[in-house]
Amino acid sequence: MSAAAIDHPFFTKLVGDEEAAALFSVEAEVDALLRFELALARAESRHGIIPAEAVPAIEAALNGFTPDVEAIATGLGNDGVVIPALLKQLRAKLSDDLRPHLHFGATSQDAIDTALALRLAKAIVLLDERLEQVINALDALEDRDGAVEVMGHTRMQAAIPVAARRKIRSWSDPLLRDRARLKAVGTDVEVLHLGGAAGTLEKFDGKGNLVAADMAAELKLRPVDQPRHTERDGIAAFASVLSLITGSLGKFGQDVALMAQNEVGEINLATGGGSSAMPHKKNPVPAEVLVTLARFNATLLSGMHHSVVHENERSGAAWTLEWMLLPQMVVATAAALRLASNLAQNISFNGVNRSV
Amino acid sequence: MSAAAIDHPFFTKLVGDEEAAALFSVEAEVDALLRFELALARAESRHGIIPAEAVPAIEAALNGFTPDVEAIATGLGNDGVVIPALLKQLRAKLSDDLRPHLHFGATSQDAIDTALALRLAKAIVLLDERLEQVINALDALEDRDGAVEVMGHTRMQAAIPVAARRKIRSWSDPLLRDRARLKAVGTDVEVLHLGGAAGTLEKFDGKGNLVAADMAAELKLRPVDQPRHTERDGIAAFASVLSLITGSLGKFGQDVALMAQNEVGEINLATGGGSSAMPHKKNPVPAEVLVTLARFNATLLSGMHHSVVHENERSGAAWTLEWMLLPQMVVATAAALRLASNLAQNISFNGVNRSV
Amino acid sequence: MSAAAIDHPFFTKLVGDEEAAALFSVEAEVDALLRFELALARAESRHGIIPAEAVPAIEAALNGFTPDVEAIATGLGNDGVVIPALLKQLRAKLSDDLRPHLHFGATSQDAIDTALALRLAKAIVLLDERLEQVINALDALEDRDGAVEVMGHTRMQAAIPVAARRKIRSWSDPLLRDRARLKAVGTDVEVLHLGGAAGTLEKFDGKGNLVAADMAAELKLRPVDQPRHTERDGIAAFASVLSLITGSLGKFGQDVALMAQNEVGEINLATGGGSSAMPHKKNPVPAEVLVTLARFNATLLSGMHHSVVHENERSGAAWTLEWMLLPQMVVATAAALRLASNLAQNISFNGVNRSV
Amino acid sequence: MSAAAIDHPFFTKLVGDEEAAALFSVEAEVDALLRFELALARAESRHGIIPAEAVPAIEAALNGFTPDVEAIATGLGNDGVVIPALLKQLRAKLSDDLRPHLHFGATSQDAIDTALALRLAKAIVLLDERLEQVINALDALEDRDGAVEVMGHTRMQAAIPVAARRKIRSWSDPLLRDRARLKAVGTDVEVLHLGGAAGTLEKFDGKGNLVAADMAAELKLRPVDQPRHTERDGIAAFASVLSLITGSLGKFGQDVALMAQNEVGEINLATGGGSSAMPHKKNPVPAEVLVTLARFNATLLSGMHHSVVHENERSGAAWTLEWMLLPQMVVATAAALRLASNLAQNISFNGVNRSV
Repeated sequence: MSAAAIDHPFFTKLVGDEEAAALFSVEAEVDALLRFELALARAESRHGIIPAEAVPAIEAALNGFTPDVEAIATGLGNDGVVIPALLKQLRAKLSDDLRPHLHFGATSQDAIDTALALRLAKAIVLLDERLEQVINALDALEDRDGAVEVMGHTRMQAAIPVAARRKIRSWSDPLLRDRARLKAVGTDVEVLHLGGAAGTLEKFDGKGNLVAADMAAELKLRPVDQPRHTERDGIAAFASVLSLITGSLGKFGQDVALMAQNEVGEINLATGGGSSAMPHKKNPVPAEVLVTLARFNATLLSGMHHSVVHENERSGAAWTLEWMLLPQMVVATAAALRLASNLAQNISFNGVNRSV
Repeated sequence: MSAAAIDHPFFTKLVGDEEAAALFSVEAEVDALLRFELALARAESRHGIIPAEAVPAIEAALNGFTPDVEAIATGLGNDGVVIPALLKQLRAKLSDDLRPHLHFGATSQDAIDTALALRLAKAIVLLDERLEQVINALDALEDRDGAVEVMGHTRMQAAIPVAARRKIRSWSDPLLRDRARLKAVGTDVEVLHLGGAAGTLEKFDGKGNLVAADMAAELKLRPVDQPRHTERDGIAAFASVLSLITGSLGKFGQDVALMAQNEVGEINLATGGGSSAMPHKKNPVPAEVLVTLARFNATLLSGMHHSVVHENERSGAAWTLEWMLLPQMVVATAAALRLASNLAQNISFNGVNRSV
Repeated sequence: MSAAAIDHPFFTKLVGDEEAAALFSVEAEVDALLRFELALARAESRHGIIPAEAVPAIEAALNGFTPDVEAIATGLGNDGVVIPALLKQLRAKLSDDLRPHLHFGATSQDAIDTALALRLAKAIVLLDERLEQVINALDALEDRDGAVEVMGHTRMQAAIPVAARRKIRSWSDPLLRDRARLKAVGTDVEVLHLGGAAGTLEKFDGKGNLVAADMAAELKLRPVDQPRHTERDGIAAFASVLSLITGSLGKFGQDVALMAQNEVGEINLATGGGSSAMPHKKNPVPAEVLVTLARFNATLLSGMHHSVVHENERSGAAWTLEWMLLPQMVVATAAALRLASNLAQNISFNGVNRSV
Repeated sequence: MSAAAIDHPFFTKLVGDEEAAALFSVEAEVDALLRFELALARAESRHGIIPAEAVPAIEAALNGFTPDVEAIATGLGNDGVVIPALLKQLRAKLSDDLRPHLHFGATSQDAIDTALALRLAKAIVLLDERLEQVINALDALEDRDGAVEVMGHTRMQAAIPVAARRKIRSWSDPLLRDRARLKAVGTDVEVLHLGGAAGTLEKFDGKGNLVAADMAAELKLRPVDQPRHTERDGIAAFASVLSLITGSLGKFGQDVALMAQNEVGEINLATGGGSSAMPHKKNPVPAEVLVTLARFNATLLSGMHHSVVHENERSGAAWTLEWMLLPQMVVATAAALRLASNLAQNISFNGVNRSV
């Protein structure tokens, strides 16, 4: 389905992003969930919590597993989470005696939050690479056009001339800071979640932290002192960084759209969008869409912060809201970086060419 | 792709809704766009703006048309709108001399906004039916359990007993008002959009309003005095009603989740969600998700109102933001109504059964 | 205090509005609360719920009452609502035997919601008058400049010329619709609230609805079938209309700021804001601030819709959030209308004066 | 005026905060602006940009200055910024020849952004102290009640018992991280802004960075490579941290309100809010208001992120929106911390005292 433009087949090259969206596909999600379950089984076996022979059987069950999507949708519609239905399908591949060893001691949120962490770790790498590309493209633009003098505008009125360099730096400097922020916030989200039913690791014979440490090592995540089931500050902090990135790119897009106005003409677009009514037009589509994506993330961010109000030991209401918002924000950020990189490579500055 | 949970195959029975989402599928969108183009050609032919022989040729070209989705995605990525690429594919099916008669005098926004109106008209019917179902289910609940006395709570503390009837009415009365609001806002959204390049109908030989009137009659939309390309109040007003519906359903869900707490026990759930760690639990999943969907729409609504700031004769930035938000809000509202209807049929009230 | 710019003494002529803000002053609030209490006493006396002699004593106590603001702040900090501390001060002016007759059978929310309704009724009159002024100013502008041809712009690029009339209508038509919306939503907010502790009117000997009808007649509000303590759809619907008004005014402001760019020069500003660094500049300050106020209301609106999720028979959390947001939205809307009226009177259109 | 509850005299002990609000008073704002102007004059004199004799005259003019608030309001209503009217009043106290030396080379945004930075630096100290108080209060609560066993709840249903310690840590651990975030984001906001008309320091004879360095040292701010007039990521990042703080406190408040339900009774409130209708009630007012303040900041945060889209060299529209939102967020955060500290000191845990 494609009610969200970000998922719509028509929009994959505008507001969507195939590479980022792939992190949230059925396949990627199931793969990450299975990685959690396998890492759990291995670590539990190592610490004597489940028998050693369960591990190869579980590995075999997970290997090549293809979910029955319809059955999972039905289960998720009932349970609110994917895990019970998924486990049912997985356990059907295990002998009766081994079934309890799969997912032993864990709760749905352990698996789902960890599976998200695995994919957000990849998202951070992707976004960081694209931030670097945009910064490099802006640096190249500065090298070529930085000395061009353009008109500075304050409050939508011509002020005094400024060097193009000054404008370009106001686009790239925030991105340099955003790279640092993205790296810093990684410690908040690349986390191994293991708590059990109510976050107390009560079925691990006091070895819960050892199991978690082993799992974290295998999954290249960070073990934490206590489960973050209801501590959602890290994920909201991550969403905030996404919105900072798209916000600064929105400023870049807004500036380009203003400078590329025919009447201003201080930026040339190498390419532009076509119009069904006016074939001669060259529309600054990516510049506009950078503004769109900034406002999209600024809008959704609010919901991510509402989700921090996460009652008791697990909030179905607040947690589900995260699922509805965060993946979209990741894709929107990836799309904005892709568009910005292209835009930076396809604009050139003209000098002040008329008295105003 | 499925970055939005609302589009994810796993979530179709929770936060998604197959019937509502179908309104925003590739097929439904293309179908609605083609209906616009055909109605335009017919009306233009009737008023002598395009030759009569163009109409059957256009009809033949549109009939059974299947879009090349990949080519449209590429075009849309460049143009920011679907129409140029779509027209290119459609015109390839027409002879050279007839090609200019397809979409003659119209602009992308005419087609896209009208195609949206056609689907929102269906959405309004769907939502109205579901509102009625929820109201009926609540009425039945009131008939059966209305006299049960439960504890009233203010500020999260027990106050004095109230009849269940009083609570149920606080759930259903807003929905009665929402039905009236939904009907009223229909006049704002079920509108025929026809303006041409900059909203001036400049290619219609002064017969633009006649063409628009004919098209409106064929498409069962309302003709308006002047195009609404940049007057987005109607669509934001519609989004507001969606959020009012989910907001009142969120209050219903929040109340049920509170009354179904084990320690309170004033509402029984006939069914409940299962847990991977605690098989005995009966989780109030739909009640929680009604809160989620209320907050989801309350969040997205903000962006729809930002989009009202729609500069000049067409804003790529603000318009694209609508596309990213509104269809999701429709689906979320349909999902909330579906969940609420089920919930209302699957709860029963217990009397005050303990001293507090 | 003045942490909100809308309340700051420096900002009264920009984002603030003295007339609208006066509706939310300590004086106006206390006055409205006292009107509620007096109307309640009168109606209760008429229906034999309190003795007739209580009424003149209550009237005397209320007459010329000046609150001890510090004591109320302390009480409100403890109770979360103003009423207990206010009643304590009022009851100190009554003899022991008459004290219970003040506020008899009512709850804090009855008084507070009704006192708000009294002021929102005035706000609606104020906003309606200002909407009319803006529409009149735009009509006058259209009469004078409507035939001037200016360049139409789509997606931030010059498209084809349009008559100024076309632009002006895209500013005024939404305001005509907003006037109708404001009138319609009045029935949702100009409501008499009377429910007692948990909305059951349990202390009124079955005459609660008669008392409410009398009070509504005296206060020129609408009586409703059942109290709206937890049915917040009306107030959220009202907030939505406020945001629609500022949204359409934001479009007007954005257009003016774009057309007044020196390089475009299609709108002249009769006056403009000064700059500390560039005394020659004429900044389109009110045009910009219309955009600000549109985004301000679009932002706050989200919180008003979150507040619809109002648990049980009274939600301290959701209700308090309304108080923090709605009055600001009223003032912002009044400010936007005031600025827009001035702006419409102080701009003139230039024709297309250069090749683009 | 007091349209915002946060500024209302009645609300100072609930959602307001006298200490934090004082940072945004007329006096504090003027004081900070004068500190900027004086530091500028001193540094400019030191580097030969203005004559040495101007400094004592400027110092004398600023010393004991009281603004004509009405005249400033009129000026700000016209100019959109406070500086031109303020400078006019200040320059009236200088001889003709010295007048140009006041504010020489600077622009309004330099003064206003720096004056804000001076106050946000104080806000960070205040918030950090209060974070420490809340953490200490929660630590003391853990020391006393940590071993009490309470029922864990997931998805609003009883799950398995957990130690109170586990809950308390889920409240305090995010605050520990927030302290680190607050400290880190300080480098983004405690910044000296100096750019001149369009951010190019064009009137400083190439010594702009030297002047800025001296000013930064005097004002205990950080000098930056280039002015941040349009790079608003830092201020949005700061707003994000505020919302993270209130979000985690909102989770604390929500949990307390749920546990203090009469039917649950796992938390005792030492004090509670009174009711006008039910004097026996003990309402969890501060707990509820923590939820309110979380949703308030989550709502306003969205607008701060929209403001990052800051066009050209200065955006009146986006900048003004910051002023309308950020100070309120600071006060709301301070209020939430104050309430949370009190709440943490006034609750005690009861063990699981009934079968569920």
